[in-house]
Amino acid sequence: MIASPPSSPSTLAALAQATRQGAQTLSIASTTLKNQALEAIALALEDQQEAILAANQRDCQAAEQSGLARPLCDRLRLNLVKLKGAIAGIRDVARLTDPVGRVQLHRQLDEGLILSRISCPLGVLGVIFESRPDAVMQIASLAIKSGNGVMLKGGSEAVNSCRALVAAIHQGLGRVGLDTAVVQLLTTREETQALLELDRYIDLIIPRGSNSFVQFVQSHTRIPVLGHADGICHLYVDAAADIGKASAIAVDAKAGYPSACNAIETLLIHQAIAPTALPVLVGALRQAGVEIRGDGAARQVIADLAVATETDWATEYNDLILAVKVVDSVAAAIAHINTYGSRHTDAIVTEDAAIAAQFISQVDAAGVYHNCSTRFADGFRYGFGAEVGISTQKMPPRGPVGLDGLVTYKYQLVGNGHIVATYSGDQARPFIHQDLPG
Amino acid sequence: MIASPPSSPSTLAALAQATRQGAQTLSIASTTLKNQALEAIALALEDQQEAILAANQRDCQAAEQSGLARPLCDRLRLNLVKLKGAIAGIRDVARLTDPVGRVQLHRQLDEGLILSRISCPLGVLGVIFESRPDAVMQIASLAIKSGNGVMLKGGSEAVNSCRALVAAIHQGLGRVGLDTAVVQLLTTREETQALLELDRYIDLIIPRGSNSFVQFVQSHTRIPVLGHADGICHLYVDAAADIGKASAIAVDAKAGYPSACNAIETLLIHQAIAPTALPVLVGALRQAGVEIRGDGAARQVIADLAVATETDWATEYNDLILAVKVVDSVAAAIAHINTYGSRHTDAIVTEDAAIAAQFISQVDAAGVYHNCSTRFADGFRYGFGAEVGISTQKMPPRGPVGLDGLVTYKYQLVGNGHIVATYSGDQARPFIHQDLPG
Repeated sequence: MIASPPSSPSTLAALAQATRQGAQTLSIASTTLKNQALEAIALALEDQQEAILAANQRDCQAAEQSGLARPLCDRLRLNLVKLKGAIAGIRDVARLTDPVGRVQLHRQLDEGLILSRISCPLGVLGVIFESRPDAVMQIASLAIKSGNGVMLKGGSEAVNSCRALVAAIHQGLGRVGLDTAVVQLLTTREETQALLELDRYIDLIIPRGSNSFVQFVQSHTRIPVLGHADGICHLYVDAAADIGKASAIAVDAKAGYPSACNAIETLLIHQAIAPTALPVLVGALRQAGVEIRGDGAARQVIADLAVATETDWATEYNDLILAVKVVDSVAAAIAHINTYGSRHTDAIVTEDAAIAAQFISQVDAAGVYHNCSTRFADGFRYGFGAEVGISTQKMPPRGPVGLDGLVTYKYQLVGNGHIVATYSGDQARPFIHQDLPG
Repeated sequence: MIASPPSSPSTLAALAQATRQGAQTLSIASTTLKNQALEAIALALEDQQEAILAANQRDCQAAEQSGLARPLCDRLRLNLVKLKGAIAGIRDVARLTDPVGRVQLHRQLDEGLILSRISCPLGVLGVIFESRPDAVMQIASLAIKSGNGVMLKGGSEAVNSCRALVAAIHQGLGRVGLDTAVVQLLTTREETQALLELDRYIDLIIPRGSNSFVQFVQSHTRIPVLGHADGICHLYVDAAADIGKASAIAVDAKAGYPSACNAIETLLIHQAIAPTALPVLVGALRQAGVEIRGDGAARQVIADLAVATETDWATEYNDLILAVKVVDSVAAAIAHINTYGSRHTDAIVTEDAAIAAQFISQVDAAGVYHNCSTRFADGFRYGFGAEVGISTQKMPPRGPVGLDGLVTYKYQLVGNGHIVATYSGDQARPFIHQDLPG
């Protein structure tokens, strides 16, 4: 197969412009048409599953020959089960509520002068992902449902898989009469940087990959970026904690899926409970295969802990490692979290409602939890149906972001020749400002 | 008066940290306490009005001696009427609904596992403004009402006025027992750059000043910026326009207050109506003192128009100048707006509902209007009670932003030992995902 030459920036801008134009039609497409497009895409993917799996086979062989690391090869590989799962996911997206066209505000400013705020698509999304070709299906379906065009930049090792998938997606779009340019595939590394510079055409960048990759994206574009670079989550076991709950939550939050961004990296424990609770917690965590590193006070309770240093507090291990620190108050726990945390998700275990309230109000994070595992921080678990990403930025959208994160809004004002001069000066007419139903 | 030495970056970070700490208490203050603080500030400002006006007098004298331009001197000047107006504004803010603590989502994920999304303050605002000392009172009151700390950086020409105002604000905060560090005043130019680098302590930058100043701020900070650099608004007079409405709206939108960001810079007119409507429109606009520049087609209708070039379409005049372009369709008008506009506010005048709907759905701007003046784009006119700024960014908050733009939200999840392991694997328990009242 002959690789196409890398697009020059101007070619890329032309592609982006085509996507933007196609997206304008998609932005006003009915919910029914968008759902028909998703079903047509699902059918096209089913039709072409052999070609898709064969293309993926070529990518996997090339990756093995080039010595790509085993975990990356695993993520690259598609099989019939994975493909069927992804196709089912497209049909799930079709069943979600359309985020476009929602009336968020409806207000009479004066007689015959009506203000509404209506949700509308962002325009064009730029999505950059590593290895996993299944991301193509998920992202394209979320973009279509939210009325946005999308420029997809996959890893070069997945180029054949991505092309086969996008070919099927284009077939589905074409079958319902939608412009295939709304889903665009970029395949070369050079295009990543060029994509990040297209602030005229792209409204939101969604990076999917390692922390360092997300950080790179965040610092190389003026386009808003949805996503988080770090997930340094904490569990604070208070003096008034139920040790059984604390132990179950700690194991769930650390060992269930240690490379998840919502897994904990640091356990904070109140000094009053440390002598009795720490041995229980460490025992359960070690049982689950977790290596524990402790500060001085923790090592006074359990002598054979590895040493935790300043570096540990700021590290996302993505592994079966947990740092433990003993604190003398909930205030100290909160201060530690607000200093070292990544504003993702932090939890307290306590039976003291006042202490829990203090923790929840003072910890600065997208998620603040009481007596449950940090791993609930997830769009599906929150009931959003789909997850675009988890944002650790302070400004909304914050935390797990569903389809709602892919739309914005417009203010629409309809009058009958109304001018502001009427409402100013000595004879100023007052506004009514009355909210209307719907 | 001896000027204090400029703060070094480390001193500034210490100040910011103090503001952040104070803001943490303010963030959980009751609505009543925050309103008491606002009333105490209003009273303190009334008490000290003589000292404030005398300080302003010193600033104005120094400005005149140093040859500061007349419009800047005018903006710098406070008098009793302006001061009383600003104090009344503080009491207005006290009457607004508290944006903090609102339950935006309340959902049972499973028995005993309750998710809520609650609005909360951003933390610390960094506000940089030119000349106008009255901004201090407005911004401080909005920050306090929304539970945020604020670092205010005023122009050096207003240093005495700002100090006198902040002294009164501190007195008011002190009287109700709030930490005075929540409102911090910076006064040297060096501090602007240092402030923009404090992304660890400051959550949102609000610049108030010229377009070039806002652009400077936007390109020199990693902190989110609320505001717009340009306001290039359009009025499109369709073939099916009522000429009387079009004429009244054009005059209102251009001549009422030409330096406003929501004033129009370009009038687009359909070729079918240009021969009859353009003379009426140009006559009315010239009557209001507006200079008209036209493209070739417009100058065929009215020969003595100045020539509009490509540059005009991209210019915010901030003056009594208007560019006119003849287009052959609503689609051409939309394409022009989406190319040259600044996504602020654009209006159509037409009696054709289908054309209006097309314009409203396809123009990409924070405000899209039908048969009314673009100058309604304003937080007070929308009924928000206060305006923090107008955002032309695509991501929310977009358009006029009220107190709501100064808060974010947290997800709170409360369980009773709940772990995600329960909800995964072969024996997975299903989620309930049931919305609860309130």
